[in-house]
Amino acid sequence: MDDILIKNVLLFGKKKNVLIKGNRFSSISAPAFATARKVIDGSGMAILPPFYNTHTHAAMTLLRGFADDMQLHQWLHQYIWPFEEKLTASLIRKGSRIAVREMIKSGTVFFSDMYFDIEETIDIVRKYGMRAAIGVTFVESHSKSQQAEKLEMLKHWVDPSGGRITLTVAPHAIYTVGPDLLQQCSRTARDLGFKLHIHVAETRTEVDDCLRDHGTTPVRYLDKLGVLGPEVIAAHAVHIDEEEADILAARGVTIAHCPCSNQKLASGTFPYKMVRKAGCRITLGTDGASSNNNLDMREEMKFAALIAKGASGDPQTMPAAEAMEIATRNGAEAFGIDAGVIAKGKLADAILIRLDDESMKPLHHLVSNWVYAANSSIIDTVICDGRILMQHRELAI
Amino acid sequence: MDDILIKNVLLFGKKKNVLIKGNRFSSISAPAFATARKVIDGSGMAILPPFYNTHTHAAMTLLRGFADDMQLHQWLHQYIWPFEEKLTASLIRKGSRIAVREMIKSGTVFFSDMYFDIEETIDIVRKYGMRAAIGVTFVESHSKSQQAEKLEMLKHWVDPSGGRITLTVAPHAIYTVGPDLLQQCSRTARDLGFKLHIHVAETRTEVDDCLRDHGTTPVRYLDKLGVLGPEVIAAHAVHIDEEEADILAARGVTIAHCPCSNQKLASGTFPYKMVRKAGCRITLGTDGASSNNNLDMREEMKFAALIAKGASGDPQTMPAAEAMEIATRNGAEAFGIDAGVIAKGKLADAILIRLDDESMKPLHHLVSNWVYAANSSIIDTVICDGRILMQHRELAI
Repeated sequence: MDDILIKNVLLFGKKKNVLIKGNRFSSISAPAFATARKVIDGSGMAILPPFYNTHTHAAMTLLRGFADDMQLHQWLHQYIWPFEEKLTASLIRKGSRIAVREMIKSGTVFFSDMYFDIEETIDIVRKYGMRAAIGVTFVESHSKSQQAEKLEMLKHWVDPSGGRITLTVAPHAIYTVGPDLLQQCSRTARDLGFKLHIHVAETRTEVDDCLRDHGTTPVRYLDKLGVLGPEVIAAHAVHIDEEEADILAARGVTIAHCPCSNQKLASGTFPYKMVRKAGCRITLGTDGASSNNNLDMREEMKFAALIAKGASGDPQTMPAAEAMEIATRNGAEAFGIDAGVIAKGKLADAILIRLDDESMKPLHHLVSNWVYAANSSIIDTVICDGRILMQHRELAI
Repeated sequence: MDDILIKNVLLFGKKKNVLIKGNRFSSISAPAFATARKVIDGSGMAILPPFYNTHTHAAMTLLRGFADDMQLHQWLHQYIWPFEEKLTASLIRKGSRIAVREMIKSGTVFFSDMYFDIEETIDIVRKYGMRAAIGVTFVESHSKSQQAEKLEMLKHWVDPSGGRITLTVAPHAIYTVGPDLLQQCSRTARDLGFKLHIHVAETRTEVDDCLRDHGTTPVRYLDKLGVLGPEVIAAHAVHIDEEEADILAARGVTIAHCPCSNQKLASGTFPYKMVRKAGCRITLGTDGASSNNNLDMREEMKFAALIAKGASGDPQTMPAAEAMEIATRNGAEAFGIDAGVIAKGKLADAILIRLDDESMKPLHHLVSNWVYAANSSIIDTVICDGRILMQHRELAI
């Protein structure tokens, strides 16, 4: 017998019965007499892929609204870094719990993280049933023994969730990690089969400093070091030229685009149209709640699409379906998660959204309404890896 | 006896008892023993000013998601205008109802509209208890008798709601209304005491055509015609230079800034920092749902703030409190509505927002969380003119 049956739910414009067995979709077009251990009435709802948030700092929900609307230098030096110095494991746990609850409620089933005290975040993810790729963060200022400890953690990693959680090797950025450590991180990621998660070309200052210190731009510098490859997730990539976009595409690098954060910090505007044309895989991230200030991927999708149109001067840039794709399938693919589309055989990750909300009326185009008009409160149900994480907006735990 | 008592609600960081008598706040700091006909438990909630949406086309919810992601010319000629030709009064009523319900649910108590068959929209507004300034739209292509009819409607206007609804004189734009009719509209507005609502400098094409046809830019052209004055609500004003911003400020014109629509149609980016510096009154509008695609002013506030920072390259541009101000108080002031702040003696317009949502945690700064992190589904209660339009997310009608 199948585990979950979602009856009469809208899928690609038609009412369907969707079956889940174990952690995979066993049918997306089951007959009316189909049954399962758990039956969900999907009438009045549509089933869609959930979100895969490819760049965030989950525990930074603690800093939501703590310091806004100021210059980056003041923000980091007077507010963020002094606050972070006082963080304890129990605070990280608290911040991660708020983040994970917020993400599930807004339809996200996976996030790629970069922060500290990662055992706490991992444990919260495990308990709540999400997927995650948790960064083991490397910065030059850590002691040799701290770095050795991190390498050991990567070498001896055992996923406590049975398939939903992995680590990434996460050298913070080129301005906090020297060339030797960057190359060591790269070798580690390749040897152990982890992704490498790094901030790249986020600000003009980063580019200027790189030109001063290394005589070239961040992407070219990383490429010269041999760090760029298909395992790399480059967050931001705001300040890159066409040739750099070509390099990223040629190396198979995934970009984690974070439009809200880039605009809020006035870091610059990601050249979406150009980068898309270069053929890079583009995914979507919220960045941390301290520079967004939420983890809501539905809002991020709309924002990404509107900014891309505005910046390119072309309203055809990033149509609704493409915005949904970068927020869902592309993110799953980048992390090797066999999900991101509702299809037989795929991992059973899905959301059910209510169609009775005014923002979904009239229903000329479901995806357009979802990307441009709705908000995440119309998500009724969230399913991840064949488990129901939320139903009728109540979290399972 | 007072009419409404909101007990233990957060106001400016402190728990207060707020009293409403008739359609005004009678106290914002009533004693614990205060009582009223209707008592609302405000614990766990904050009271904030609601939204005043200064530029929309309510009935265009009918076109939500009907046509997206295309060039303006194709969008108007192949989709919007052919659709609009088929509109009937009963469809306008349907679209207005969706819009009004959506607006109340997302915390908006007032909108400034520009569309057709306005009797239907007015009747829906009256029934649902909102405020509105409904545009009597003038375009050159209407017949003389149609225009005479519209003038008569303005001359003999009687507000059916007893104080919540008014009209505006709404010449559509300089490219659809000739100079004589523009001046006639201006005189009518001034003689009868109505606001004048007009699209101004929305696109580069409008500016180029104005230069070609009139030898000057839209703002200078309108100023030469004598149309600009404190009664004018100029929607968009995207393509204006510093001198034009100074002209608008000197004439006391109000700008209805519509960031989502401007970005979605790739019309251009409103020069917020420059216009603010010039001293213009800036308010916020969603534009129609066909180019947004919702009427959600909370989302519009965040979008406005982030776009303004990104465009100016300065993260200090439009801080959270300023974003809230343009979406609330400035809009009310522009239309002479004695509301937009929660204060004794002011008209009783307010929303109550729930603080138990993850997006409001932690509560370092209420306004920051509201502007940058929340979504409109945390609005529990909407009060307009001393009447409860929604409570516990259920509309009163």
